Amino acid sequence: MSVFGVYGVKDAAQTVYFGLHALQHRGQEGAGLATFEPDGSCLHHRGLGLAGEVLSQSELARHHGTIAIGSTKYANAAQSGLDNVQPLFFRHKSGDFAIAGEGKLINSDQLYDYLENRGCIFHTGTDSEILANLIKKESAGKRIDYLIRALNMMEGGFTFVIMTRNRIYACRDKYGIHPLAIARLGEGYVISSETCAFDLTGASFIRDVEPGEIVCIDDNGIRSNLYSHFQKHKVCAMEYIYIARPDSDIDGCNVHAFRKESGRRLALECPCPDADIVVGVPDSGLSAAFGYAEQSGIPYEMGLVKNRYVARTFIQPSQAMRERGVQMKLSAVRSIVGGKKLVLVDDSIVRGTTCLKIVKLLRNAGAREVHVRIASPMMTYPCYYGVDTPTRKELLSSKRSLEESCKAIEADSLGYLSREATVASAAGCSELCLACFGGGYPTALYKHETEE
Amino acid sequence: MSVFGVYGVKDAAQTVYFGLHALQHRGQEGAGLATFEPDGSCLHHRGLGLAGEVLSQSELARHHGTIAIGSTKYANAAQSGLDNVQPLFFRHKSGDFAIAGEGKLINSDQLYDYLENRGCIFHTGTDSEILANLIKKESAGKRIDYLIRALNMMEGGFTFVIMTRNRIYACRDKYGIHPLAIARLGEGYVISSETCAFDLTGASFIRDVEPGEIVCIDDNGIRSNLYSHFQKHKVCAMEYIYIARPDSDIDGCNVHAFRKESGRRLALECPCPDADIVVGVPDSGLSAAFGYAEQSGIPYEMGLVKNRYVARTFIQPSQAMRERGVQMKLSAVRSIVGGKKLVLVDDSIVRGTTCLKIVKLLRNAGAREVHVRIASPMMTYPCYYGVDTPTRKELLSSKRSLEESCKAIEADSLGYLSREATVASAAGCSELCLACFGGGYPTALYKHETEE
Amino acid sequence: MSVFGVYGVKDAAQTVYFGLHALQHRGQEGAGLATFEPDGSCLHHRGLGLAGEVLSQSELARHHGTIAIGSTKYANAAQSGLDNVQPLFFRHKSGDFAIAGEGKLINSDQLYDYLENRGCIFHTGTDSEILANLIKKESAGKRIDYLIRALNMMEGGFTFVIMTRNRIYACRDKYGIHPLAIARLGEGYVISSETCAFDLTGASFIRDVEPGEIVCIDDNGIRSNLYSHFQKHKVCAMEYIYIARPDSDIDGCNVHAFRKESGRRLALECPCPDADIVVGVPDSGLSAAFGYAEQSGIPYEMGLVKNRYVARTFIQPSQAMRERGVQMKLSAVRSIVGGKKLVLVDDSIVRGTTCLKIVKLLRNAGAREVHVRIASPMMTYPCYYGVDTPTRKELLSSKRSLEESCKAIEADSLGYLSREATVASAAGCSELCLACFGGGYPTALYKHETEE
Amino acid sequence: MSVFGVYGVKDAAQTVYFGLHALQHRGQEGAGLATFEPDGSCLHHRGLGLAGEVLSQSELARHHGTIAIGSTKYANAAQSGLDNVQPLFFRHKSGDFAIAGEGKLINSDQLYDYLENRGCIFHTGTDSEILANLIKKESAGKRIDYLIRALNMMEGGFTFVIMTRNRIYACRDKYGIHPLAIARLGEGYVISSETCAFDLTGASFIRDVEPGEIVCIDDNGIRSNLYSHFQKHKVCAMEYIYIARPDSDIDGCNVHAFRKESGRRLALECPCPDADIVVGVPDSGLSAAFGYAEQSGIPYEMGLVKNRYVARTFIQPSQAMRERGVQMKLSAVRSIVGGKKLVLVDDSIVRGTTCLKIVKLLRNAGAREVHVRIASPMMTYPCYYGVDTPTRKELLSSKRSLEESCKAIEADSLGYLSREATVASAAGCSELCLACFGGGYPTALYKHETEE
Repeated sequence: MSVFGVYGVKDAAQTVYFGLHALQHRGQEGAGLATFEPDGSCLHHRGLGLAGEVLSQSELARHHGTIAIGSTKYANAAQSGLDNVQPLFFRHKSGDFAIAGEGKLINSDQLYDYLENRGCIFHTGTDSEILANLIKKESAGKRIDYLIRALNMMEGGFTFVIMTRNRIYACRDKYGIHPLAIARLGEGYVISSETCAFDLTGASFIRDVEPGEIVCIDDNGIRSNLYSHFQKHKVCAMEYIYIARPDSDIDGCNVHAFRKESGRRLALECPCPDADIVVGVPDSGLSAAFGYAEQSGIPYEMGLVKNRYVARTFIQPSQAMRERGVQMKLSAVRSIVGGKKLVLVDDSIVRGTTCLKIVKLLRNAGAREVHVRIASPMMTYPCYYGVDTPTRKELLSSKRSLEESCKAIEADSLGYLSREATVASAAGCSELCLACFGGGYPTALYKHETEE
Repeated sequence: MSVFGVYGVKDAAQTVYFGLHALQHRGQEGAGLATFEPDGSCLHHRGLGLAGEVLSQSELARHHGTIAIGSTKYANAAQSGLDNVQPLFFRHKSGDFAIAGEGKLINSDQLYDYLENRGCIFHTGTDSEILANLIKKESAGKRIDYLIRALNMMEGGFTFVIMTRNRIYACRDKYGIHPLAIARLGEGYVISSETCAFDLTGASFIRDVEPGEIVCIDDNGIRSNLYSHFQKHKVCAMEYIYIARPDSDIDGCNVHAFRKESGRRLALECPCPDADIVVGVPDSGLSAAFGYAEQSGIPYEMGLVKNRYVARTFIQPSQAMRERGVQMKLSAVRSIVGGKKLVLVDDSIVRGTTCLKIVKLLRNAGAREVHVRIASPMMTYPCYYGVDTPTRKELLSSKRSLEESCKAIEADSLGYLSREATVASAAGCSELCLACFGGGYPTALYKHETEE
Repeated sequence: MSVFGVYGVKDAAQTVYFGLHALQHRGQEGAGLATFEPDGSCLHHRGLGLAGEVLSQSELARHHGTIAIGSTKYANAAQSGLDNVQPLFFRHKSGDFAIAGEGKLINSDQLYDYLENRGCIFHTGTDSEILANLIKKESAGKRIDYLIRALNMMEGGFTFVIMTRNRIYACRDKYGIHPLAIARLGEGYVISSETCAFDLTGASFIRDVEPGEIVCIDDNGIRSNLYSHFQKHKVCAMEYIYIARPDSDIDGCNVHAFRKESGRRLALECPCPDADIVVGVPDSGLSAAFGYAEQSGIPYEMGLVKNRYVARTFIQPSQAMRERGVQMKLSAVRSIVGGKKLVLVDDSIVRGTTCLKIVKLLRNAGAREVHVRIASPMMTYPCYYGVDTPTRKELLSSKRSLEESCKAIEADSLGYLSREATVASAAGCSELCLACFGGGYPTALYKHETEE
Repeated sequence: MSVFGVYGVKDAAQTVYFGLHALQHRGQEGAGLATFEPDGSCLHHRGLGLAGEVLSQSELARHHGTIAIGSTKYANAAQSGLDNVQPLFFRHKSGDFAIAGEGKLINSDQLYDYLENRGCIFHTGTDSEILANLIKKESAGKRIDYLIRALNMMEGGFTFVIMTRNRIYACRDKYGIHPLAIARLGEGYVISSETCAFDLTGASFIRDVEPGEIVCIDDNGIRSNLYSHFQKHKVCAMEYIYIARPDSDIDGCNVHAFRKESGRRLALECPCPDADIVVGVPDSGLSAAFGYAEQSGIPYEMGLVKNRYVARTFIQPSQAMRERGVQMKLSAVRSIVGGKKLVLVDDSIVRGTTCLKIVKLLRNAGAREVHVRIASPMMTYPCYYGVDTPTRKELLSSKRSLEESCKAIEADSLGYLSREATVASAAGCSELCLACFGGGYPTALYKHETEE
């Protein structure tokens, strides 16, 4: 999922369109846009599909405002369908507003209980709707105070952009689990889940939103509020490892540079003597594979090719579809891998089904030996902050030894990067949340979640 | 707009599909469906377009429950777009539920105020969402009691179907302004805005829902509650005159029979001596034209032909589009109307633009004289109960004399049916709301509405 | 099927769009358009669906020429799919050209043989492609001479419009089986299968194309050539009875007037004493029903209502689909037909399955007696000239007596109009081809066709 | 453009679907499929869009035959639109057949002349239609003899697959300009423009079709005919450099290996001392960039990122669109290229507009120096054999010196690979056609083509 906001820019909706296009990798199930028009009305459009499909030329032509927010949504079983595509739009006599968010609360059940006891009803399964209701429960004081109180009731990893008729608020949880950054565009501002969207829209990076910060943008410029003085910066390691685009920077550290460095360290920690070639899994394993090749001196070869024209149907979250999808997406190159002892570098292993599939693909194409090297630690715990990981028992390595995991993916050998090397790859820019790689959740957890 | 509900019927979603198809004339902008599935989850699907487009075979195949509700929506400027297509779905810890409604509240502004003061926020502009919030404001007692209290706070012309996991409630306002009827289908029940949907789905008519009644359907059968003891039955005359399908019965009176009778009475009240032929405006003016021809002895001829294949784009509420639409939809038959003095019978005149267009069409096709006879009284006031009429000043006859109106539509003469004859055409079945034909609103009105 | 052509009119493609819209009843499977552009190139677009779907606003915006032809196609099993949608476009060094045709040749097998022996290959199953090849086989003389020779080799019922860069030819077979007419539009001309398309496009009827005539339209105006001096005018009776729109005139006789007159004669030939009401089958049976009611004095009532919003999928030619389609399209009105002895008037009976379905619908709705009266003779032979009738054995009455036919459709009585009365209904305007009503084909037939 | 054929395989259409998916990079404007069904009929379906869009699940479900051919088409101005999407289907009394082809004839004008003088007319602008007509002009002897004679009349670079009811013919021009290969799939055979489609469909490579060979596949297996004894094998160098997928082998040489080798040789011929990083242009420049980095020791970095989710509209061949497309597709990574002296490696330069755009992108992202290295020679002549190059005057380097070209793309320096090194990169597998890199066309040319 992604959020994107534009303030004070002519044809803001067009800018959102380009921004969501750059953030498309963070969710392809649906996309949405909301704009405050010059007449004060809010135009709102959502749909299933890619941003470029949902936001047609004719739809964009309806939007003339200078303030807009948008979002892309990935497919997950719990909250599928159009109703959960954001931004959400809310009518209220104190002024209409719209919210888009990403990430996940860990206390949503408690907040539903609290709010429903006070007469609220819910249309969607989104955290944005919880936030909207928390804000409107309050009735005294200023809007920013409501927002501060509301955010303090929410626990988890999240970012939100909130648009009113003349203001955008950008919020990041107090651990800074998911990224969020601000840029300048002409006289106005742009907010984005990732910095890669700034170049495409012509915006100039200013800074990251801080953990626990509410950035408020209006005609007076940018103002900052901290909604919590408790701060323990823990950026999600998977953002660096897999989720973000390589051309994004998170908290000052470039994602490609992180990945390449982790590949170099992987070559040192898990060498593969006498291997003929290094092959990376496109696209997120490539940077690490380059690093591995460079460090080890084993030549990098394009042993796997990705089909750029995968027939697009809405991505199904079922296991069966994912496996089949791989066949359509990747091909092993027989004349490159045939007869070779090869090091296969990927960014991470979740269930192991994709990895098993790729190992088989390579063997079918004649590879003599396939040594799998993973540029992140063993994933052993689920994420509760919005990364779409399965339950513990579905994780390849949660209950398996390294040897058993290696056997399960039918590799000749298997090596993972250490937690220490992962941390070191970020070069001190960020502290990392490594909970999925062995526990140590930054937040408290509710009982049912730790018992799995 | 229309509502449709199914309880205790295998493949309830398929039945909704056929039901909405029969009710399609009550709204073509959008359609929606919600089903409670055997596992207790609620499947919800909405879209812009005809029911047959929105509810594809593959969508219907996802729905397996025996309880479902649906709705069609017409285009109106105030509440356009997907967000306002019903049913709406609501999550709540006391049980999820869905609501579809039609008609219009006159005190929605007051209720928004009341609810927003108590912390509610709104996603849509629908009365169904107001109802949902009113129900959930209460927290003691039984659900039916909440519903009774909620309906008593709502003033206007409306019908609602409310679906919970194991029950459907069907409600009609205390004036019975819009129709709503119940039928038996096998072991289960069907609820529909119009009876014409019963035949298509194979259901057998039981009775109309009474004004001020809440019918509750569950595994124990049908139970009735009156939410108000105040009863002043005033069925909307426009339902008989224009809105409903001729094969529907409202409160025991067949719509075609009403229209034909009004045509007969029109021939007596506004004769047209020496006319050569009677021509009806397809489709809603045909029944009255048959009655006029039969009573007067002037032969009925098919002087206007309707194109069955009008290129479907979403209906635009703009005046310009409506005018242009007529050209695409109707043709005058030169060899029938050429040289003739003809009586043109239509059901009603709202703005007069369509009527003017048709008169011109007929003259262009060679008609010698065009005498317009309208099978309803002069429309002089707007409707506040959900019929999509314009403001007073846009109504042809609100500020014009009969003579001026005749001139505006370029007819040789113009005659309207009297209010008395309109009432008499219903043959004592229903008392009628004739507010748009000269005032006498059954409900109180808020100030701003009477000042126009 | 239909053909439509425009010469010398600004934005000719727009005019074709409106023309095809008016001719949509002659085929809904597909539609096409070809325009010669100012630069001499030919823009060509075809698609499956209604004209309004195939010819989008953006497609029309590409066409700027003043000369264009178009066509609509109905679904038939033998020549289904996009390849057979017309106009066809042909490249040739002597000048590109396009052809659209309707009707059917009876000697297409012989012509395929002739042409393939001379090296031709075929892309489609259309008669237009045969014509194009016959024209180009010749190489001496003038184009009009090739066309005359080509048409003389073709036997059957057909009309063609042929467009070259600066000319349109309109041709009608020597029996004049299918209609074709010319009109004036500003400085230019319009050609259409039916006159109903003239009003919609603002054109003024000039005359019908004569049987055996080639009308050539270019900057010098209209010229006429007779390609055959053999003339035996035999207009297809089914055009009057069922195919054409009631607002069209064929050879000077209005279609609605024909149908009403045939209904009047039906009341005289097949009375139904003591019947309570007359009910017509919408849409093509209505005119005859009015005539029957007027002549007999039995009141006409709207006992069947047609749903205007039938969910559009491409029309399937299978028997099963047709039967199901009726349920979606027609509803019987219980409160009108309940307890009544009624006369059901339809234009014709082909297989009898639709009629049986309607009789059952009416009985289910409570009709006491259903007396079927058909405003055309018993259909006992197939059509070889392009009307989509089935083989003899599928025709209800080809092997059944009147009594057996009546039983098959479960009617209380059944009556057909005589051949004589059908002829008389045309009031001397046209001689009619009545081959399907008892033989007497105007052309010779090839052996295999008469043996069925 | 691509061709693909399947013989003797259950559900042949599904196999074509997967094959075209793997060949999608050879054309995205349209795709088509033709199958001979068990009953001897030919099912034919074509459309605009990607193979995965055109060939829907429901379309594939209609096809049951074991013999099928398919094709993808790229957008080119001369032959755009649905009419030119292949395979083409031809009806003929000697048996229906279908043809798909790629490449381009140089004597099509002469062949049109020859055929039209003999009475042929043309529906499309494809070479396949010319071939079909040449075959059917003959009438004595066996089909294979007609085909041999027809191919001997055709000059240019082409491949064709021809499907009759029980046979597939696969043909490659006598210079072998475009690739075509055969594989085994179970008991049947697969033919493909590129070998990359074999892995995806599970087929095993047998051999390339030879220049001037007709391979005939039927129930007796594979037979070979040489239609010409003149053989001068000249594989299009651009197939290796740009067109083919890196995982394909052409005439025994892997495409990725060719590109990487050309990158190595480029590093030797055009070094860039003191450069900080090597950056490749995704996707076709990546292999050469790896080779350049490996040879030079300059580290490879991911300085350009390609957006995988480019909003798909049909690719427009206009210059303006191409330029804008680049912005949507590529991003420069500021934190990687900022302040760097970099070597930008691309596969080739055609007009130079894309290259200029990328150089600017890199400079905007902070690159200090951009040294462009092209892994192929200067392109100075157009291709007449089907590669979509522009006229001479549009080629960047046809009239510019190296220095002027460097200036035009605003690079700090520019270097091209030599013709000799390009030849050497193929490692003796193939002789190459290098006509676009300085002339030396393998075929004779017609006058008008050399005069540009």
